[in-house]
Amino acid sequence: MKALRKTRAARGLSLETAAVPAIGSADVLVRVKAASICGTDLHIYGWDRWSQGRIKPPVTLGHEFCGVVERVGDEVQAVESGDFVSAEMHVNCGHCHQCRVGEAHICPNVKIIGIDQDGAFAELVKIPASNIIRLDPAIPERYAAILDPLGNAVHTVLAGQIAGQTALVTGCGPIGLMAIAVAKACGSSMVLATETNEHRRALAKKMGADAVLNPAAEDAVARILGETGGTGVDVLLEMSGNPTAIQQGFKALRAGGRASLLGIPTENVPLDLVNDVIFKGATVQGIYGRRMYETWVQMTALLKAGRLNLEPLFGERVKLEQFEDAFSKLQGGLAGKILMYPNGLG
Amino acid sequence: MKALRKTRAARGLSLETAAVPAIGSADVLVRVKAASICGTDLHIYGWDRWSQGRIKPPVTLGHEFCGVVERVGDEVQAVESGDFVSAEMHVNCGHCHQCRVGEAHICPNVKIIGIDQDGAFAELVKIPASNIIRLDPAIPERYAAILDPLGNAVHTVLAGQIAGQTALVTGCGPIGLMAIAVAKACGSSMVLATETNEHRRALAKKMGADAVLNPAAEDAVARILGETGGTGVDVLLEMSGNPTAIQQGFKALRAGGRASLLGIPTENVPLDLVNDVIFKGATVQGIYGRRMYETWVQMTALLKAGRLNLEPLFGERVKLEQFEDAFSKLQGGLAGKILMYPNGLG
Amino acid sequence: MKALRKTRAARGLSLETAAVPAIGSADVLVRVKAASICGTDLHIYGWDRWSQGRIKPPVTLGHEFCGVVERVGDEVQAVESGDFVSAEMHVNCGHCHQCRVGEAHICPNVKIIGIDQDGAFAELVKIPASNIIRLDPAIPERYAAILDPLGNAVHTVLAGQIAGQTALVTGCGPIGLMAIAVAKACGSSMVLATETNEHRRALAKKMGADAVLNPAAEDAVARILGETGGTGVDVLLEMSGNPTAIQQGFKALRAGGRASLLGIPTENVPLDLVNDVIFKGATVQGIYGRRMYETWVQMTALLKAGRLNLEPLFGERVKLEQFEDAFSKLQGGLAGKILMYPNGLG
Amino acid sequence: MKALRKTRAARGLSLETAAVPAIGSADVLVRVKAASICGTDLHIYGWDRWSQGRIKPPVTLGHEFCGVVERVGDEVQAVESGDFVSAEMHVNCGHCHQCRVGEAHICPNVKIIGIDQDGAFAELVKIPASNIIRLDPAIPERYAAILDPLGNAVHTVLAGQIAGQTALVTGCGPIGLMAIAVAKACGSSMVLATETNEHRRALAKKMGADAVLNPAAEDAVARILGETGGTGVDVLLEMSGNPTAIQQGFKALRAGGRASLLGIPTENVPLDLVNDVIFKGATVQGIYGRRMYETWVQMTALLKAGRLNLEPLFGERVKLEQFEDAFSKLQGGLAGKILMYPNGLG
Repeated sequence: MKALRKTRAARGLSLETAAVPAIGSADVLVRVKAASICGTDLHIYGWDRWSQGRIKPPVTLGHEFCGVVERVGDEVQAVESGDFVSAEMHVNCGHCHQCRVGEAHICPNVKIIGIDQDGAFAELVKIPASNIIRLDPAIPERYAAILDPLGNAVHTVLAGQIAGQTALVTGCGPIGLMAIAVAKACGSSMVLATETNEHRRALAKKMGADAVLNPAAEDAVARILGETGGTGVDVLLEMSGNPTAIQQGFKALRAGGRASLLGIPTENVPLDLVNDVIFKGATVQGIYGRRMYETWVQMTALLKAGRLNLEPLFGERVKLEQFEDAFSKLQGGLAGKILMYPNGLG
Repeated sequence: MKALRKTRAARGLSLETAAVPAIGSADVLVRVKAASICGTDLHIYGWDRWSQGRIKPPVTLGHEFCGVVERVGDEVQAVESGDFVSAEMHVNCGHCHQCRVGEAHICPNVKIIGIDQDGAFAELVKIPASNIIRLDPAIPERYAAILDPLGNAVHTVLAGQIAGQTALVTGCGPIGLMAIAVAKACGSSMVLATETNEHRRALAKKMGADAVLNPAAEDAVARILGETGGTGVDVLLEMSGNPTAIQQGFKALRAGGRASLLGIPTENVPLDLVNDVIFKGATVQGIYGRRMYETWVQMTALLKAGRLNLEPLFGERVKLEQFEDAFSKLQGGLAGKILMYPNGLG
Repeated sequence: MKALRKTRAARGLSLETAAVPAIGSADVLVRVKAASICGTDLHIYGWDRWSQGRIKPPVTLGHEFCGVVERVGDEVQAVESGDFVSAEMHVNCGHCHQCRVGEAHICPNVKIIGIDQDGAFAELVKIPASNIIRLDPAIPERYAAILDPLGNAVHTVLAGQIAGQTALVTGCGPIGLMAIAVAKACGSSMVLATETNEHRRALAKKMGADAVLNPAAEDAVARILGETGGTGVDVLLEMSGNPTAIQQGFKALRAGGRASLLGIPTENVPLDLVNDVIFKGATVQGIYGRRMYETWVQMTALLKAGRLNLEPLFGERVKLEQFEDAFSKLQGGLAGKILMYPNGLG
Repeated sequence: MKALRKTRAARGLSLETAAVPAIGSADVLVRVKAASICGTDLHIYGWDRWSQGRIKPPVTLGHEFCGVVERVGDEVQAVESGDFVSAEMHVNCGHCHQCRVGEAHICPNVKIIGIDQDGAFAELVKIPASNIIRLDPAIPERYAAILDPLGNAVHTVLAGQIAGQTALVTGCGPIGLMAIAVAKACGSSMVLATETNEHRRALAKKMGADAVLNPAAEDAVARILGETGGTGVDVLLEMSGNPTAIQQGFKALRAGGRASLLGIPTENVPLDLVNDVIFKGATVQGIYGRRMYETWVQMTALLKAGRLNLEPLFGERVKLEQFEDAFSKLQGGLAGKILMYPNGLG
């Protein structure tokens, strides 16, 4: 079968012919319909420092996808051939402290399919049955292909109260954009966003943001305080990983507010803990992955009900063979999601 | 000034001329713009057993209203003449256990303006400054007049998770109808409703319910289980007080679900505690009033943001002099809200 | 091997010779050190209506136990031969809604080892590796044998706030007695208990209750209100299943309090929902089993730290052959736990 | 009357003769029995930069105290002459966003008695009735004099789950020491502490810490990971404000853990947000003051029940006239609390 793989410790990927994965008794083999490229895939393509420490070539990439079940292992009962599915690609160990207390999404022994094991940029992918998510046919295929990052957004937004709350999204990459839509759908009374990239600001408006600020061109903190009657926002949804955006986000947060951090800074961030966290009585949450599997239940319920309009996010649909072009466009800063179709555009 | 009062221990109300209330140093005098008739007012008009035990005539009724501040006491700083306001009419004691632990809405020493003290069915009403809610001019006057029952609905819906959750509203009187709109606005993935009255079922559809069932004509529990894939609803919002509806609601609730009870049964309700609560691991919440003042903040934020369409609820606008006609229509089963204008229809 | 089994649909149990269980690749075979008799075992012995509907003879009973791992299946990694263990005997399905949202303890497809499958009243018992709990050697063997009911108590007490709270335990059977110790260890400021049986009242005092009332001899509600300055208790831990005790418990609960219900009534219970739940703004929780596996983590941490003194609970230690005598004593109303040693008293 | 005052913008305090405060209709006049010196009082004595920006001389210091009600204003009903009381000295505005949503303890308009207004280092002190806490006579006078800092400790410990949890207290000043006792009383399974001062380490052991580490002499993070089986602690209670201690605390926190920060760093703290918060899925809470008045209810319930042994904290009892000696000893690093008796040692 065709597979897009990291075959050696260097920049780039290559389209290879690979063996169909052999499945165990508790596994599911899925024929990939559509797969989406994540920022992490760009890092691995570029072979940055993080990739060099984590990736062990050869490995097939791809951890955002949907498909149809081809075949299931002997002990698999809850899934069957022909099911329309996606999957949680973080495979937890099941026996560490975190797994035991219901926090499997932060299992320290996690293995990620498409990072640590062969993933979904291929005609077929092997997934443990426990991680398969059966999808209602009402959920469009293109939406089903991006549930992994949508789950990040849903996990972040719903990590605390959002109904009747004002929110600030700092950083309007794909997950930030999704967070805008999720926050609005879940009753946020005002969603503000900050983003320096003009194209992304335009997308943020389309996703439903009430106001989108360019922190490079105006005093974003002052503006946000103004929009909230001087109080500050109830919720900060940090999606940029940018130290300045993080610091501004904290300044714009109201006393007693919630700061949910998903964006990944590349260095230590000096925080004014006294004024921005302690005296404010703020709650800061580190957000990683998606709750297993509560977030999946929430997000598929919202999608099935048609509560999320993610149309502005979708860019091109391409065949797996066109990967170089797709990666190139994303490296150029495109905020949307490009979907690859390993089994043809159908 | 004109005031609609209970002057004696018998059926009926009378329009009287009353003295303008004298205000203390921490009080606010409000000129009433619009006041809405509550089901409780109907009970007092009819002089039922509850009313006979609670009401001490003479007293001016009216606890749902909005208006404009006429005058404030010497020590009042956060409110001033001309402010557009409504008020929480439950006045808590401030020093009991419940007040001390942040549960003032269930203060056992509560006094209710319009029940225990002179209320808002009058040209002017006296309110402690602490209970005044300043309103954004973006909130329409007719919405501002029904914040008391809307607060009941918001308190009930937001007493637990609602985003991405399926909900069942049992009973589509005004507060049940409002709860439908609130649940949808706050991300509920499916809102089902039950109601035996045809007119109210039609209103429930207009408020956004995904399906409205007539439990007198079909097996509502079976239908709800079917709509939820056999699981049952995540959230029961009980608005009827009807024992059969309560029992059906519990049967339709999923294991692990939340039942929030606002409707007032008139007798003991036999509950299948084992199967409906204990084995289900259900959470049952008694809901009373509105959280002081968290619910007010949430609901005014939703209204200011235009997230709630309550238009189907509104019926006639009448002068205070037309009260007999208004009470008569509501006693006939009208689900909407009739607004009275003590200072004229303007 | 020896096994205590229900072999036919009638009263009684019989000590049989049974085959050693064959284990699958994900299973663990445990040599039983000590097993404890549950009230449910008494029901099955007596072959009551519930047993007749649930039990399919032949089956080996026993779901409270500890032991040492004899052998593990091929894929088992987190457990090994020689480990000192107990187990969660509720085996969840893993794919229903409840399992997916982190509520596996109320999985509607649960199978219980010792009820639906062969259990621990035998020399050896087969358990899925996922359900094995490895125990610190600091936990005494007799404590390790009663983690199942202790988990019920811990789950109930810690289902909400307990530190600095007053609590009422209604019903002082083994789990009620354990709940007293757990509540005190976790910072309850006052634990009151009600129980009609004199022997159990004495045990309740030994477990640390601040006052133990006999509701047959005094007005328990009045007394509890008196002990709490007229406010009522913050937390009701209902362990009796007795309708009168439940009703009294609700009357003694403060407005805004929590009622956690574990006891199993045998019929519908008429509740004064208006005064005891709705106007009170109470929260009522159905409690079933133990959270998987958060409760196990909490309880083993408390035990390892020596925070729970359960000594008053322990009665005789007997060989499996002496089961008739043990069951007979428990049927006579003994509140303590009798431990059986299938592999000898050692 | 005698009063210990800051009379000018310079180092030092002076014992003055001051007028008895005039009380308003909602105020209470309290005869001070015992008052305790806070670290903040040392800063004001020393006239550091913070003091220079905040304090407006002349003002009487003192915000930790207990006493007996001397006289109440006309409208005061819940307190009367002769009551044994303490008080929350943070006076909130009542109408800001935070006050409205139940977070009065972080009201941005707060005024602190003993900082912004005349305090309790005097024979008599004026307090708004709302802020008076009536105390059970079972609470010892010396405990009643330190409820303000004890409330900080209780607020910090009970800001999340503590029963069955491992905890690390970084910094064993008075509040850190109190936090050890509170955590143990509320069911923490293991309390570790770090502190460089030998005397304070000895006190930490007396307060009940299971192990007390000297981070200047050993690798505290490695040791804590070792004590927790490599997992890290469930809860970090940060009491030092020391950047290194904060960083070590985060490294020792388990994935999914809670970090509650009360200590006040004097500069920005560089945090490894990615590894210590985001990937860990940690929750970080800023803690300020005491919840009004939930913390008071919790702490007085614990004290009345005799659940907290704070004896090791108490140092000398002195007359107000001996203030120079008391301040001098505390400036020397004494961890205990010195109580001053403005009306004599009695």
